[in-house]
Amino acid sequence: MLNYPEHITTLINTLKRLPGVGNKTAERYAFAMLEWQPHHLSETAQSISTLSQKTKFCPTCGCLSDNETCYYCNNPRRDQTTLCIVSSIREVFSLESMGEYKGLYHVLGGLLSPMSGITPDDLHITPLIKRVETSNFKEIVIALDSTLEGDATALFLKNTLEKNSIPITRLAFGIPMGSSLDYIDGGTLAYALSSRTSMHS
Amino acid sequence: MLNYPEHITTLINTLKRLPGVGNKTAERYAFAMLEWQPHHLSETAQSISTLSQKTKFCPTCGCLSDNETCYYCNNPRRDQTTLCIVSSIREVFSLESMGEYKGLYHVLGGLLSPMSGITPDDLHITPLIKRVETSNFKEIVIALDSTLEGDATALFLKNTLEKNSIPITRLAFGIPMGSSLDYIDGGTLAYALSSRTSMHS
Repeated sequence: MLNYPEHITTLINTLKRLPGVGNKTAERYAFAMLEWQPHHLSETAQSISTLSQKTKFCPTCGCLSDNETCYYCNNPRRDQTTLCIVSSIREVFSLESMGEYKGLYHVLGGLLSPMSGITPDDLHITPLIKRVETSNFKEIVIALDSTLEGDATALFLKNTLEKNSIPITRLAFGIPMGSSLDYIDGGTLAYALSSRTSMHS
Repeated sequence: MLNYPEHITTLINTLKRLPGVGNKTAERYAFAMLEWQPHHLSETAQSISTLSQKTKFCPTCGCLSDNETCYYCNNPRRDQTTLCIVSSIREVFSLESMGEYKGLYHVLGGLLSPMSGITPDDLHITPLIKRVETSNFKEIVIALDSTLEGDATALFLKNTLEKNSIPITRLAFGIPMGSSLDYIDGGTLAYALSSRTSMHS
């Protein structure tokens, strides 16, 4: 049995660091790259190698900042009394793309996961506690995944932050819009039924 | 609505060149890379940028060659009378991983596709014709996808190569091993039925 040349094995191993990419997909990507034009390869390599230099994070909220000042924290048009806690920067863009949320953000940089050894010290929780204590928030919205890790993190944040007596809310659970009931899991369906809302407005 | 910083948009666009990667997946990869260690980023960039320099192709068969000589073409332990035609280098590795095929290969570098403008001139077909004419092959195995493009390419190759009066074969069609009949499409099932084989050995 023939093995791949060493430089291709190295490339496959680095591509396997991408989320959801296993051996098969990494191989597929590596062999596709073999057929790319050299200038496409160098463009991609360039974008990746300069990523960490070019990316600036806001020291307050952890969001991306193009300039020296953060788009959110230093923006007088944003509601300074609402704080939305998300796990990663990507979710800031998802929430922003709706265009309805006008408050501030705090990026945790992950979710608590004892299985993967991610403890509160690995997330930006200490700066969050300090920020909540020194700011005048009127509501804290927890916008985390509805997974084991997301639920654990939300519970931990609620316990940690509730002593500030600021209302803490969480995104609503229920049936995703446009979905068929056939494909909804039992837990969601039971929750959606018990939390049913009146249709008389 | 906020857009991504320019260098992230560039990265997303380059990642979209990977097979099967659309906007959503490219965004996911780019945001995952934001959290990588700088040395992981530079490792990946390095592997990608040196890919085309480090990769050598055999001028005869188009397979990868680690050294100056091709592992297949110059190997006296390979059967020099059987030629297997594949569309990409990856399939050479798939076939080799079985360990049963001991002949030579010819990599076409793609499949005919009038829709995407890929004509016989874009594939390594002229060198193939020359190679078949000047070699002593006793069998040509066409190992192409069972898709519209694969079928068209196989038919084209058969018409082009049959004047050399060398037996031309194609991989068998049928039910994949370990699969459930429920998930097999009608065409495959009909073919598998009409080509049923005797169980008396």
